Amino acid sequence: MSNRNCKAIVALSGGIDSCVTLSIAREKYDVAILHVQYGQRTAEKELECFHKIGDHYGIKDRLVAPLPHLESIKGSSLIDNNMEIEKGIPNGSGIPSTYVPFRNATILSIAVAWGEVIGAENIFIGAVQEDSSGYPDCRESFFESFEKTANLGTHDDNRYIIHTPIIHLSKAEIIKEGIRLKAPLHHTWSCYKDTSKACGECESCMIRLRGFEQAGYKDPIPYR
Amino acid sequence: MSNRNCKAIVALSGGIDSCVTLSIAREKYDVAILHVQYGQRTAEKELECFHKIGDHYGIKDRLVAPLPHLESIKGSSLIDNNMEIEKGIPNGSGIPSTYVPFRNATILSIAVAWGEVIGAENIFIGAVQEDSSGYPDCRESFFESFEKTANLGTHDDNRYIIHTPIIHLSKAEIIKEGIRLKAPLHHTWSCYKDTSKACGECESCMIRLRGFEQAGYKDPIPYR
Repeated sequence: MSNRNCKAIVALSGGIDSCVTLSIAREKYDVAILHVQYGQRTAEKELECFHKIGDHYGIKDRLVAPLPHLESIKGSSLIDNNMEIEKGIPNGSGIPSTYVPFRNATILSIAVAWGEVIGAENIFIGAVQEDSSGYPDCRESFFESFEKTANLGTHDDNRYIIHTPIIHLSKAEIIKEGIRLKAPLHHTWSCYKDTSKACGECESCMIRLRGFEQAGYKDPIPYR
Repeated sequence: MSNRNCKAIVALSGGIDSCVTLSIAREKYDVAILHVQYGQRTAEKELECFHKIGDHYGIKDRLVAPLPHLESIKGSSLIDNNMEIEKGIPNGSGIPSTYVPFRNATILSIAVAWGEVIGAENIFIGAVQEDSSGYPDCRESFFESFEKTANLGTHDDNRYIIHTPIIHLSKAEIIKEGIRLKAPLHHTWSCYKDTSKACGECESCMIRLRGFEQAGYKDPIPYR
């Protein structure tokens, strides 16, 4: 899909998926970047990655949106220090504890609101359906429905498009695409547990490491 | 529509519409209340009304969600002190400056996220289509679409219902319904400008005063 509007907002967490999504968006659009903070354990590291990636590409328009309510309602092991994060790669049964309730809807709502103000009708989000371990707000049908909702709930003369360019790629394919586009993968972070050296053991580290291995590249970030 | 689930979350701004919506929701459901802060000029007064209404009904489950990003992106005269708030009742042409970009989507996303955690599948919002001066995120079609989106983006065993019980009522009809249900209208606030005595001149005051006049009741709050 394309649109005459030339501005895009990219949701940038600081992980590989959103970083590669940004590299893809930059090929066609003037980009602004959005970082949402929801009290996740590695929040400071992710914000640092957000700014390093933004600096790498010389992006001026940046919005950091703190969502303290997601911290107070808990419901995810990414946020709640009393919950245990699963180790290893998920087996595909059920929704893992790292699921943050309806997170992508909140992120997209903020992106569309910002889009209304700065005139950006293209919203990019680096969701991955297959590889994302069963989060319901990573399904393509959810994004299609959200796009309709966004166009019903905003000015009639706008036409929002929710872009999910990597939704059907595997982690290895995303990494290959990132390398092809010279994405700054060395500035990305995935570990759910640590912020100086990645743990190499949590679900997110395992998926990342397997992706690099399958893609045939060495992960540029430090592991303990 | 009804649902076997007996818990509801009501978005409660502290105005008449949300207060009456809460009174309606209480007739059938165990209610939790959600207040969203987006840097509006009268934020403190609205929060005070939220808690007074909650106290009036003895509601324990309360969530106050600050959304500082809506303040930083501006785009509405309700938030931006550099923008002028229109006086008088809108004439129906165009979207007024008080429109906060995609606000209801953000509020509903937070409500659904909280609903995932506390097991509430009924979400009530006091939106009014006809009387709401053309805000696109107050249209019934928007809420229907959001409901579908919420069910696609959350656990498959949940069934969210977005309830908009006053969407087709006039302000006078809402006030009558509130009086019938003994809603604590004396704890509500509508003025966009002031917090001790209502100005009586802004769009919101004019709509409120006209509503009480048409309903045949005296507004219990103080005006200057």
